[in-house]
Amino acid sequence: MQARDIAVSLPTVTTRDSVAKAVRIMVIGRLPGLIIVDDLSRPRLVLPGTQVLRLAVPGSYQEDPALARTIDEAYADQFWLDLGNRTVGDCLPRDPARPVTVPTGANLLEVAALMARTRSPIVAVVDRDASLVGAITLERLLTSLAVFGLGEP
Amino acid sequence: MQARDIAVSLPTVTTRDSVAKAVRIMVIGRLPGLIIVDDLSRPRLVLPGTQVLRLAVPGSYQEDPALARTIDEAYADQFWLDLGNRTVGDCLPRDPARPVTVPTGANLLEVAALMARTRSPIVAVVDRDASLVGAITLERLLTSLAVFGLGEP
Repeated sequence: MQARDIAVSLPTVTTRDSVAKAVRIMVIGRLPGLIIVDDLSRPRLVLPGTQVLRLAVPGSYQEDPALARTIDEAYADQFWLDLGNRTVGDCLPRDPARPVTVPTGANLLEVAALMARTRSPIVAVVDRDASLVGAITLERLLTSLAVFGLGEP
Repeated sequence: MQARDIAVSLPTVTTRDSVAKAVRIMVIGRLPGLIIVDDLSRPRLVLPGTQVLRLAVPGSYQEDPALARTIDEAYADQFWLDLGNRTVGDCLPRDPARPVTVPTGANLLEVAALMARTRSPIVAVVDRDASLVGAITLERLLTSLAVFGLGEP
């Protein structure tokens, strides 16, 4: 099998979408992360779910874990309200990593090694002009490999 | 809300379980990662799904991405067969990170900030003697925060 054989079509977002929308798309689709595309449908970023969450965590709490411990529980339940209409582009780190992509012809061990190394449970599959063809999630990879059929329970 | 209020009971593994079993438990439970406990039910490691996958990727391919590209597609579909009966303990990195845990009284912003910083979509909730009380997944956190109700679609 090649990456193209197991790639699936998943919703994407752009940097102009709100962070709230991005989180909602991820939750509703039960996705482990999101692919952020540019206007030509090329992956610009591939964010693991924890880094989509990070977009919604106010910067001061990201940097200083002890600070979050001091705040009021009721505020902590609603910290994401502070987001307002901020967009994905507003909240991205300054030097985002290169998008985690594989060519359509990549084999499944390449995909697995890439996920393991980049700690990204979602990988964008791109064609020769870098356009998005589909996505491979960790779950999709593992079920395609039928690893769950291996050995005894 | 506090961590104890949204913690759920999820299957765990020990270092004596096979990697194949660990992967299978993760896939069947649709879990974003696994908590590895010791014999006293204390979290020893909290592995994001990509790092559970990593246990199954032969070391040489982890280190050298180009190597995976050179191999036969049929072998790539079955690389995990090389695992045999190797256990989680056999395959762990030499210097594993401290387990990603929060106390039962942690607020939800603390949990969110920890997930974002450690890039771990699963967090172990522990009581005062470090025993496992439950787990919080990224999905559980986000649905508890009802972030998906925010703003327009």
